[in-house]
Amino acid sequence: MAPAISFQFDFSSPYSYLAGEKIDDLAARHGREVTWRPLLLGIVFQHWGTVSIVKQPGQSDYAPHDMARSARFMGVPFRFPSRFPVPTQQAARAFYWLDDHDAVAAKRFARAVFSAYYVDDRDISSPATVLDIAADLGVDRQALTAALASTELKERLRRETEAAIEAGVFGAPWIVVDGEIFWGADRLPQIDKWLASGGF
Amino acid sequence: MAPAISFQFDFSSPYSYLAGEKIDDLAARHGREVTWRPLLLGIVFQHWGTVSIVKQPGQSDYAPHDMARSARFMGVPFRFPSRFPVPTQQAARAFYWLDDHDAVAAKRFARAVFSAYYVDDRDISSPATVLDIAADLGVDRQALTAALASTELKERLRRETEAAIEAGVFGAPWIVVDGEIFWGADRLPQIDKWLASGGF
Repeated sequence: MAPAISFQFDFSSPYSYLAGEKIDDLAARHGREVTWRPLLLGIVFQHWGTVSIVKQPGQSDYAPHDMARSARFMGVPFRFPSRFPVPTQQAARAFYWLDDHDAVAAKRFARAVFSAYYVDDRDISSPATVLDIAADLGVDRQALTAALASTELKERLRRETEAAIEAGVFGAPWIVVDGEIFWGADRLPQIDKWLASGGF
Repeated sequence: MAPAISFQFDFSSPYSYLAGEKIDDLAARHGREVTWRPLLLGIVFQHWGTVSIVKQPGQSDYAPHDMARSARFMGVPFRFPSRFPVPTQQAARAFYWLDDHDAVAAKRFARAVFSAYYVDDRDISSPATVLDIAADLGVDRQALTAALASTELKERLRRETEAAIEAGVFGAPWIVVDGEIFWGADRLPQIDKWLASGGF
């Protein structure tokens, strides 16, 4: 079987949310699976000395406007969050803990976090919100609470983010198909063509 | 008749070239015309304190790779120029001089400049190259030589660039459809849908 497509993202990245709503169905149409891997984009930006597109000079109006328009274009529900960006450590750590047990449940959780943030405007930086989202999906709240306090899980997320930086990641979503790197939700049509033709 | 679509670009912007190869045909399918307006992206970047995407941290490999891949995806011939970026004052000034006399000839010239740079790897910063490209299209070489030396034409390009900055332009291609701003060649599908449905 062909290797999984790698989808690296931050829960606080709107274009990551848009890509996340589409990438698995797109991959499935080509008989491919997708591995989801959250990282901390703030650490990535810090490494490169860059900032979120929303904070780039001149883009404070255009960027949120483009995000909302891109969402409508893609048929994805979207509301620019009232708190933005927010720390996403808790959600990302919870994802990896779930992923180690059940990748399907982890993706379901990731989609629920995205939806809580970009549809319901909930504060996904709050540990209580993250636990609520997981509990609603049937996750053991006490076990996840204990895991989120563990050094091991913190280290895991730190390692994932550092590995991403070492691999050259400078933004999100960062999608890798058979070694070919695609940055941005607006590259999904190129990914579709790449998968259909084995490169172009 | 519906107002013309505004297409602002820099001859040294690869994504402007890609958009320029498609925008008139796209507009024509919706019964619309396009007004081309070159500007000096270097002055725009200077204003905002930003840099070309190729010079943004971490992107020196990815950006040219994405430009070439996007060109293949769009079916546009493309070779990353051996000199990049280059000053485009001469080409932009020649465009405005032509445009005042004959907008069709000016667009033909603009496409020839783009092609000289992105297909034939010619140095479009050179006044001689700009004059050669124009002469090949039947433009009076002596008249254009005189015009390029005029203060009036220099002022014209300066004013166009300043007006763009005042209007919020921070990058190129910058395409405005009935007041709606689209930044980037990768927004052409959204422009197509916008024109088809009068907004979405």
